Amino acid sequence: MVNGQSNTPLNIMPLPAKAERGEGLLRIDASFRIAFEGYREPRLERASIRIERQVQRQTGLVILHASKSAGLATLQVATDHESKAIQELGEDESYTLDVAPAGAKLHAPNPLGALRGLQTFLQLIAITPDGFGVTAVHIEDRPRFPWRGLMIDSGRHFIPLDVIKRNLDGMEAVKMNVFHWHLSDNQGFRGESRKFPKLHEQGSDGLFYTQEEIRDVIDYARDRGIRVVPEFDMPGHSTAWFAGYPELASGSGPYAIERQWGIFDPAMDPTDEKTYKFLGEFIGEMARLFPDQFFHIGGDEVNGKEWDANPKIQAFKKSHKIKDNAGLQAYFSGRVQDLVAKHKKTPVGWDEVLVPGVPKSIVIQSWRGVDSLAAAAKDGYRGILSNGYYLDLGWSAARHYTMDPLGGPAAALAPAQKQLILGGESCIWSEYVNAENIDSRIWPRNAAIAERLWSPEGTTDVASMYSRLDAESARLEWLGLEHRSFQRTMLQRIAGTWTPSEFDALRALAQALEHEKDYAREASAGTPPTSLTPLNRLVDAVYPESDLARRFSLLVDQFVAANCKDAAQATEIRAQLAEWATIDDRLQGLAQRSHLVREAVPASAALSQAAKIAVDALDSIQKGAPVSADQKKNHVDFLNALEQQAHKSQLTIPELPAFQKLVEAASASGVCAR
Amino acid sequence: MVNGQSNTPLNIMPLPAKAERGEGLLRIDASFRIAFEGYREPRLERASIRIERQVQRQTGLVILHASKSAGLATLQVATDHESKAIQELGEDESYTLDVAPAGAKLHAPNPLGALRGLQTFLQLIAITPDGFGVTAVHIEDRPRFPWRGLMIDSGRHFIPLDVIKRNLDGMEAVKMNVFHWHLSDNQGFRGESRKFPKLHEQGSDGLFYTQEEIRDVIDYARDRGIRVVPEFDMPGHSTAWFAGYPELASGSGPYAIERQWGIFDPAMDPTDEKTYKFLGEFIGEMARLFPDQFFHIGGDEVNGKEWDANPKIQAFKKSHKIKDNAGLQAYFSGRVQDLVAKHKKTPVGWDEVLVPGVPKSIVIQSWRGVDSLAAAAKDGYRGILSNGYYLDLGWSAARHYTMDPLGGPAAALAPAQKQLILGGESCIWSEYVNAENIDSRIWPRNAAIAERLWSPEGTTDVASMYSRLDAESARLEWLGLEHRSFQRTMLQRIAGTWTPSEFDALRALAQALEHEKDYAREASAGTPPTSLTPLNRLVDAVYPESDLARRFSLLVDQFVAANCKDAAQATEIRAQLAEWATIDDRLQGLAQRSHLVREAVPASAALSQAAKIAVDALDSIQKGAPVSADQKKNHVDFLNALEQQAHKSQLTIPELPAFQKLVEAASASGVCAR
Repeated sequence: MVNGQSNTPLNIMPLPAKAERGEGLLRIDASFRIAFEGYREPRLERASIRIERQVQRQTGLVILHASKSAGLATLQVATDHESKAIQELGEDESYTLDVAPAGAKLHAPNPLGALRGLQTFLQLIAITPDGFGVTAVHIEDRPRFPWRGLMIDSGRHFIPLDVIKRNLDGMEAVKMNVFHWHLSDNQGFRGESRKFPKLHEQGSDGLFYTQEEIRDVIDYARDRGIRVVPEFDMPGHSTAWFAGYPELASGSGPYAIERQWGIFDPAMDPTDEKTYKFLGEFIGEMARLFPDQFFHIGGDEVNGKEWDANPKIQAFKKSHKIKDNAGLQAYFSGRVQDLVAKHKKTPVGWDEVLVPGVPKSIVIQSWRGVDSLAAAAKDGYRGILSNGYYLDLGWSAARHYTMDPLGGPAAALAPAQKQLILGGESCIWSEYVNAENIDSRIWPRNAAIAERLWSPEGTTDVASMYSRLDAESARLEWLGLEHRSFQRTMLQRIAGTWTPSEFDALRALAQALEHEKDYAREASAGTPPTSLTPLNRLVDAVYPESDLARRFSLLVDQFVAANCKDAAQATEIRAQLAEWATIDDRLQGLAQRSHLVREAVPASAALSQAAKIAVDALDSIQKGAPVSADQKKNHVDFLNALEQQAHKSQLTIPELPAFQKLVEAASASGVCAR
Repeated sequence: MVNGQSNTPLNIMPLPAKAERGEGLLRIDASFRIAFEGYREPRLERASIRIERQVQRQTGLVILHASKSAGLATLQVATDHESKAIQELGEDESYTLDVAPAGAKLHAPNPLGALRGLQTFLQLIAITPDGFGVTAVHIEDRPRFPWRGLMIDSGRHFIPLDVIKRNLDGMEAVKMNVFHWHLSDNQGFRGESRKFPKLHEQGSDGLFYTQEEIRDVIDYARDRGIRVVPEFDMPGHSTAWFAGYPELASGSGPYAIERQWGIFDPAMDPTDEKTYKFLGEFIGEMARLFPDQFFHIGGDEVNGKEWDANPKIQAFKKSHKIKDNAGLQAYFSGRVQDLVAKHKKTPVGWDEVLVPGVPKSIVIQSWRGVDSLAAAAKDGYRGILSNGYYLDLGWSAARHYTMDPLGGPAAALAPAQKQLILGGESCIWSEYVNAENIDSRIWPRNAAIAERLWSPEGTTDVASMYSRLDAESARLEWLGLEHRSFQRTMLQRIAGTWTPSEFDALRALAQALEHEKDYAREASAGTPPTSLTPLNRLVDAVYPESDLARRFSLLVDQFVAANCKDAAQATEIRAQLAEWATIDDRLQGLAQRSHLVREAVPASAALSQAAKIAVDALDSIQKGAPVSADQKKNHVDFLNALEQQAHKSQLTIPELPAFQKLVEAASASGVCAR
């Protein structure tokens, strides 16, 4: 077996560079013990306790740490030498892992590789007919890209410390190594500043991280081989700064924390020296707090309206021969990059910062497209890809999985230019994300992105990815991630009932549906949501990607591919459709009593009606009575109308393509007509 | 409405002394705010933040604490005066709560009553057709008993601090006011002693609470109106003490932490003055650490074997004219009670300590039966009932609910004697309970016991109790209790699969079954379990009381009571039976791959076979073809044999009485024969 492509695949995610199955099984029991040789450090000792606890959670075995000194270690970890005191971009993360029935050996050049290999070992522990064990295997592994990140937006909704930490645990599990912390935006300034305390005092509604907490997160991340890159977005996305320091702004104020979502006018005044004095001191304070080499200065989405409205700024542009606002932003960026450089840090910015003349040191984070990434590399800039990795857009894992930092125009770059593309970062923007549902908006899909960034380029088998994603999703729950468990309690709140007959209908509805994709929620009619809008609706409680819909669609694919002959498949499809067809009726009682159920009724009615059309199609197929082209068109049109109806609840029906497939298969020209 | 006995009952648990519904609804929205008048203290401010956060969790509303100073309070809390600096037994906990559409008013003599009333208010928040709200109501409430406790055994399995805390949250929610902390037993000594550090160092496998953590728990409990009564069990149940201090024991040792369950020989030497010197200093240290007036000294289950085997102790008995080991224990108890009294504390002991001549100050905790409680009261001793409240025995909530501290022989006591019965305590002994499943072994059933101890004597409607228990169980999840959520992850570990078709069969099995009751698990054949035995089996993952079985049994009751004429009920019964009938087949694949599924196969086979018998009975009923008396007897015998078969997996089939009811209804002499 190479690359895990065997009949009984190893549940490793991301897939290692090389894996060869051996013979036999290493038993995991109460005597489980990790021992270290070679280079040692406290971080490795702590990792050993952490892994041991994780083995306990995964297996339920009782492993007494205190009594583990005797006997042979289950897993021997050999590390050659230390890694950098402050984790650096591009450090060696390779390891080899050999598991045999008598014991496992993990070898890594440095602690980073050891941490990666420990996670692989954890993933390999499985239940067997004779207890828990790890199948014999030889693994040689190293990452494809050196920058594999997750960005969490703590600005729009505050994300509590424990939630951040369990997501760092999740990142470690899938071998991500950069936590990009978006700490300020129009709706909130979340990091304590001791130099400028009004930033967090006036800009956060009291919801911010103290410097002690930030240091705690940095230590926690370092223990897991994860760098922490802070972002303070400027000169736009900065209204929350101005609540405490209106003198930084280009307008006359007054300013208050922004409650709406969108792009807003307030922007820092790039023409006033006191702006740079302030930023110089602020960046200095944060550069000391965050040890990482990289410092993110944002730079996205400045609309320029405050600049245009300010005569002093207009005069400055004229006197400095700056011809447009892009030029003005370039001027600002250049000044801020100097401040960052002064504190010995390397700046990172969103791709708007890439304008002619910007220093080559800056790393470009591309959110607008792969083209800009390739263009930047051609110009000699380093870059990381986030376009295609926005988790808040609700795409499927499969869709994220197809995005490759070296895909598209980047595939044509020269080898040296390709080296400039450092990797990628998934991003969770938090307009519709809070502490309660954030895990579900990140996981498990983020694991597919992590695999894209770690595993060899040829790792593209979607079925294999989903099979391993299912396993990893379950395993991530042992880290305390609530990406699955959050739903039941949210649905109980929405239902306000504890009677299974009623509750089950709501749960069945939730599991069939997904929230609308991309930016549909902003665009929907009615009162625009704000940061004070409760995220307690069905749209907030559904999974971004419905496992049920995915499995059902696969089943329909198989059924139709075999010309609809398989009776067992037909029975299974019919049973599922029958349940969906009754959901709307079963939900009516709840809808009378709960305003949150009532607003989901357009979607439940749409799902039930769509399922009935699919049942009719299945009837036609099984009775051998194909429908006419006109009827088929009516049905397809109706399905599309039902999807629109579901949007009234800001939901989408991911089963519709499968329903349509049945309708088409049932038509006179369809593959299952007979 | 009086006592919540209306058509639309208020989901309050425990039921208040008096509740009268008013007209209209108080809306709960983002402007929710609590204000205080009268006596104020920081504990009330903290409670206000806590309640606010809880309202956010229950509703999903965004309530910004920082901006809440303006406008009228939703809930006005008026408190007359302070409560005792150290919470005392018998303090006033009464309150009145008036909810009207314009606002709610809570009045209490002291903060304890205010805390109780706040919990009632939280329980009243419900979802409505127009948002969240509280229905208008007038409540006057006070507890029936002053001592309403939960005992957690941290000795046999260590229960981590966060688990203790969330259970304190649960206790507050159901108005319990005593946390009895069983801190030492043969299998572990869990409290840090600075005077005698080998107690926790040698007696806990490193799993103990520091004094700082203990103080934290005491503060946390006090904030919730809960007293903390520590228990250090002696002279028996004390092997873990001897691991560090063998000189305290009556035998010659050596001693190590006990790993087995049961009653063991080691006991303190009651004849050696150095025992009392040690205990005097130890009790002094703990009396300073735990501020509560009461101090539990255990005293249960001393088998006397070490005493009998020690010539010095035998000589002491002779020279002191102590005629038996009960007398020796009485001597020990008297000495220890003196030590407790010396530190100005009041002792509590299990009912074995009640021997002639024991000082009247001791409070008797009755675990062996209600008789001893009444007898103690007759003799002038105060007592608390735990018999009937052992949560680890797996009884139904209904069965615990029937136990009344003033029931049985206590009902015949004179009023002054009844006053001596202070209340009761539920107990969770932790042989088969750990951090992962303890919440499920305590909740929701503990809420039924809490109601027994708080609500008026006449509160005995089981259907009303279960209806409110369902609601409270869901609400308790917002406190972080994992009594429901723990199961899915445990089942995923047992299954080792993430394929719904397989996993669903295991879940259906788990939800149908319960663990064996009382002490069956100790008595079962095979290797006896120890403290190192993993609690990762299906028996550890099932709920002690199956909601599904309860609902199914009610349905069968209704069906048979109406002479089996209701076709809709028959359909519902048949659908459920059909699912159970197929479980064993559906589980076979998993059983091949997982040793933990395999060991549940006797139970799954038994359930499926039993369900088939019930299906046959239903067929007979619906076809009007009654079965003969002989056939009926065969079926009943077979059902009993299947129950025995389920015991091989240490599980029980709580649906069997309902199945038997169908079999009997279907017989020629049955009510549904036609």
